[in-house]
Amino acid sequence: MAFIVQKFGGSSVANAERIWRVAGIIADTYSENNDIVVVLSAQGDTTDDLIEKAKEINPRPSKREMDVLMSTGEQMSIALMAMALEKMGLPVISLTGWQIGMQTNSVYGNARIKKVSCDRIRNELDKRRIVIVAGFQGVNKYDDITTLGRGGSDTTAVAIAAAMNANLCQIYTDVEGVYTCDPRKVPGARKLEEITYDEMLELASLGSQVLHNRSVEMAKRYNVNLEVLSSFVRKPGTKVKEVTKMEQTKISGIAKDTNVARIALIGVKDEPGVAFKVFRVLAKQKINVDIILQSIGHDETQDISFTVAKNDMEEATAALREQQDIIGFRDLSVTDKIAKVSMVGAGMVNSSGVAVQMFEALYAAKINIHMISTSEIKVSVLVNESEADRAIQAIHAKFFET
Amino acid sequence: MAFIVQKFGGSSVANAERIWRVAGIIADTYSENNDIVVVLSAQGDTTDDLIEKAKEINPRPSKREMDVLMSTGEQMSIALMAMALEKMGLPVISLTGWQIGMQTNSVYGNARIKKVSCDRIRNELDKRRIVIVAGFQGVNKYDDITTLGRGGSDTTAVAIAAAMNANLCQIYTDVEGVYTCDPRKVPGARKLEEITYDEMLELASLGSQVLHNRSVEMAKRYNVNLEVLSSFVRKPGTKVKEVTKMEQTKISGIAKDTNVARIALIGVKDEPGVAFKVFRVLAKQKINVDIILQSIGHDETQDISFTVAKNDMEEATAALREQQDIIGFRDLSVTDKIAKVSMVGAGMVNSSGVAVQMFEALYAAKINIHMISTSEIKVSVLVNESEADRAIQAIHAKFFET
Repeated sequence: MAFIVQKFGGSSVANAERIWRVAGIIADTYSENNDIVVVLSAQGDTTDDLIEKAKEINPRPSKREMDVLMSTGEQMSIALMAMALEKMGLPVISLTGWQIGMQTNSVYGNARIKKVSCDRIRNELDKRRIVIVAGFQGVNKYDDITTLGRGGSDTTAVAIAAAMNANLCQIYTDVEGVYTCDPRKVPGARKLEEITYDEMLELASLGSQVLHNRSVEMAKRYNVNLEVLSSFVRKPGTKVKEVTKMEQTKISGIAKDTNVARIALIGVKDEPGVAFKVFRVLAKQKINVDIILQSIGHDETQDISFTVAKNDMEEATAALREQQDIIGFRDLSVTDKIAKVSMVGAGMVNSSGVAVQMFEALYAAKINIHMISTSEIKVSVLVNESEADRAIQAIHAKFFET
Repeated sequence: MAFIVQKFGGSSVANAERIWRVAGIIADTYSENNDIVVVLSAQGDTTDDLIEKAKEINPRPSKREMDVLMSTGEQMSIALMAMALEKMGLPVISLTGWQIGMQTNSVYGNARIKKVSCDRIRNELDKRRIVIVAGFQGVNKYDDITTLGRGGSDTTAVAIAAAMNANLCQIYTDVEGVYTCDPRKVPGARKLEEITYDEMLELASLGSQVLHNRSVEMAKRYNVNLEVLSSFVRKPGTKVKEVTKMEQTKISGIAKDTNVARIALIGVKDEPGVAFKVFRVLAKQKINVDIILQSIGHDETQDISFTVAKNDMEEATAALREQQDIIGFRDLSVTDKIAKVSMVGAGMVNSSGVAVQMFEALYAAKINIHMISTSEIKVSVLVNESEADRAIQAIHAKFFET
């Protein structure tokens, strides 16, 4: 007997047939004498439908009222799932964010969890009930409804698992686990049995859609055993843990992120404070900057290049142009026809030459590298967007298919 | 400046255009410097859509989970209305049943209000905000979501008006007020300026769809000034009060109810305890009985006739047949091809001959009366269903069109 938290995403509960399939998974886990808390997202298109409804009334509604609206989506899911389990004759109860005491701060639309008071859930589990919880939502100190933003339901699941010392937190999605590369792009991609939190974090932030960073970070902090698996195929998925087996591959995955634009400031004065002036402008606009590259100065000027998300590109460019005199740059060049290709692996740090092998693979494929960024467990390169798929295929072949 | 509670039903907020119209009414009321609490139902077909979704999963879901599901409907309405008012630049906040402390008992699907703790609403009104409240829903002592059953949003509005001593509770519907008769059936029907609680109660229970009995009963008990008016036409509606003007008409309205079936037990022994035996059987099945008529006995037997709602007819008949030996009746006759036509008016009790005038009108129209029932402010007759419309027209002409 174990205490298991299971999270099912929107596509896993999109319609009656899928709800039934998920109910089957839950019922099987329950019949093995486990305590189960199930966390659900809103059904398939519900979120989009609700946004559509709101925009029809007000294109810029307050985030507080959006959260009141959006949180109905998960509430529908939990009621419907409870009804499916009732039909199977199982003891079950659905609970919303405020009912489980999911306390958050007051940043509507992107709230952070402060505390989960688990009394109600514990109480229901003690009655041997399956507890179905609405993901993505909480309440702030004013008793107003908040939502957790992207990846919110994953975070709900991990937070409950952490607060209640669950033995396992299973994240069910529409893929079978974490792959060495996107299987739709690289046919040779294979599923990883295990991966460390840090590797998962790098993969998540590099465009792998499986798990959101926030949930992985929280799992790492509270040492929650995660498993990523499919709600469509009954197979073991990928385990995310602190330490994985000794014989792990050096490289755990290759990821591609096309949501990247590069801005280059050319002819910036080579003097102290320049980087501060540039990035202060962007910070004021709340624009996140990813890779930064500062060239070595010559002729008393230098170039500063960096990447931002595609939809921040125009705002960033406009803000910088406005401050051109204060920052002092000669020219600004910008492109969004690029992609970031990254290789992640905890084994990398102790193994010289891994980055070199990656560059070699790209050279052999005649792919030009625009920027390079490295960390202890990651190497990222910027390449032309049109060459990104070929790039991940070449790198994957080099490391996994020989 | 006054404190006004405004309630808008599902058809008044069915789509974006109607939400805008209602927002206009609210904005005007606010601009006259009033404190406003707005109570909303779920949008148009939302309730039916949610029931449909549930039935697809489980034809007989628990009422607790149905309430979790159904309560999302009003939550969507309040968020959307708040967004419309935000667009107009008005200060507004939406609140759910649990957020306003709408405490109910635990009868899921048909809960009774126990208490409204008005702190949150008062707090928001003090900030000069328009408060938009989800009707129809509350929480029980376990912090579980409940719904109030039929007419629930009207009841929410009246309960808040009562608890907070509002000056007026306006119930906006798709009709312009309370009429002397159904205007679709009787072209000469006219809107009443005023009506007493008791008259409204009789009209409501007699098939007039304007207000649900529970809300009128509560308004009477706490002396809440009600007004029924249209959200489509900006005109004064009908005021419902304790005492109306002296010069009121004796008759306030004529109503027709076709949801009636008559059951007659023939040849019942004329001895004590018979009525008890008959109606105990029906009470056990939770079947409500309306008009009861016990004939004067002759030859040591008598007949007992009574009416029930049409959808209780078969169950009632079956239950009585099963107990035929114990009750001791010779025969049972049943029909649902009948209708109840009623005349309501507080003036009636002090004015002899009103009932006689009603019978005279029916006689002139050659309409046969099957049963008669009277109260202090009401006379009801049972007629053939096919003659019901002619009956209300004839009575209306007699009292209102001369």
